[in-house]
Amino acid sequence: MIVIGELINGMYKAVGKAIRERDAAVIQELAKEQVRAGAHILDVNTGPYSTNPREDMIWLVETIQKTSDAGLCIDSTKPDVMEEGLKRAKTPPILNSISADDAKMATFLPMAKKYNARVIALTMDKSGVPNDRASRIELAAKIVTVASEHGIPADSILIDPIVLPVNVAQTQGLEVLESIREFRMLSDPSPRTVVGLSNVSQGTKQRPLINRTFLAMAIAQGLSAAILDPLDTGLMDAMITAELVLNRHIYCDSFLNAYRKG
Amino acid sequence: MIVIGELINGMYKAVGKAIRERDAAVIQELAKEQVRAGAHILDVNTGPYSTNPREDMIWLVETIQKTSDAGLCIDSTKPDVMEEGLKRAKTPPILNSISADDAKMATFLPMAKKYNARVIALTMDKSGVPNDRASRIELAAKIVTVASEHGIPADSILIDPIVLPVNVAQTQGLEVLESIREFRMLSDPSPRTVVGLSNVSQGTKQRPLINRTFLAMAIAQGLSAAILDPLDTGLMDAMITAELVLNRHIYCDSFLNAYRKG
Repeated sequence: MIVIGELINGMYKAVGKAIRERDAAVIQELAKEQVRAGAHILDVNTGPYSTNPREDMIWLVETIQKTSDAGLCIDSTKPDVMEEGLKRAKTPPILNSISADDAKMATFLPMAKKYNARVIALTMDKSGVPNDRASRIELAAKIVTVASEHGIPADSILIDPIVLPVNVAQTQGLEVLESIREFRMLSDPSPRTVVGLSNVSQGTKQRPLINRTFLAMAIAQGLSAAILDPLDTGLMDAMITAELVLNRHIYCDSFLNAYRKG
Repeated sequence: MIVIGELINGMYKAVGKAIRERDAAVIQELAKEQVRAGAHILDVNTGPYSTNPREDMIWLVETIQKTSDAGLCIDSTKPDVMEEGLKRAKTPPILNSISADDAKMATFLPMAKKYNARVIALTMDKSGVPNDRASRIELAAKIVTVASEHGIPADSILIDPIVLPVNVAQTQGLEVLESIREFRMLSDPSPRTVVGLSNVSQGTKQRPLINRTFLAMAIAQGLSAAILDPLDTGLMDAMITAELVLNRHIYCDSFLNAYRKG
């Protein structure tokens, strides 16, 4: 499974401060720590309070790439910020994110094609997040079709069914899990799948437990990638073990260490 | 999900000793402890070293029922031992187990009918445990059909796909998980499903981690019951959380305690 480390995000206080003060050491350490813990790709988000997100994105991408070869997942709602990130990525990046909204797809899909980026696509549109799996699958099918018209194959799309907090949208857990399974049936090659994991436990008192349990359940449905906190050791242990059960890496007594050593 | 506590089994040293010495307190405490920890049903197995399993089973069932109202899962390969257990159960018990072997079904299914017992049925026969999900489903279908001829409805059968240790049969994890999902499609009403959980981690160095991760994955496939160690708090936490995600009990901040208080 592809682990996308979520920690380089200006919404976190220390990261926001580091961005404002152009404190490269903080960002670079966070990049290295996440990769050491098992992240394959680093999400890069200037955060909601950035007053100059374009400049912040350029600085973040350049700062991270001075110290890390990990792929980048450029995370912004703003097309100009997105493009600054994508164009500076040294290896093919991920564009995070589009939805099934026509205007969003028209703006971002050509950009993904231009920079050879994979695309995270949320199954929502202007009317919001659907309540059931059928609507999620319908939106996913639309995204895959439109992406294909832009020359982006299904297996470069990471469909995100939108994980909602279990404390406010408890009926949605099953819908999301079954969606992950069903997205794989949409086309051949099939689209990939991704979740923004930590949302499932938002506002609860048992965040690590809920996160790691949900992740194991999602991996059982065939999840391809997750945006998560790789520094949560229990979470990474659960992920490594779930993949072991699915025979994705070979058993040895020290399989946790073996995985972490790559 | 139905939790079947596995600890009253003569193969465990302290339990074997308590059976030999007719030490009721040890068995009764183990019954109460398991129920307090969340077991709905108690497995009862005289163990492999019993010299008089018929008498041992009678003593165990009577001893447990003096202190506990939990349902019993009578676990024996011997028809006479099984019948002594079933006939003494105060509430409808579970017969553990049959397989798709014709002779076994002919012996045990009439017994299950007579004592109004649900039946754990292993998807294996004389040729052993299958390597793939298709053969498991074929055997499950045979069991459901023969049980129905004996007047036992599908939803009284708990199909066990036979969990194998991940360190020796690593390809079987996916087959077992997908079998659990597919068994549900066999008939309407559908057969229930069960796993003997701890087998998945047999011989490994990370038993609790592998057990709880596998359980969450199996619950995501719709597992109905598991034979497990309810005193493993991390395992029970994972189970409660997986069921929370599937909306089987209502979220509250203290959902772990709320579940345990029933």
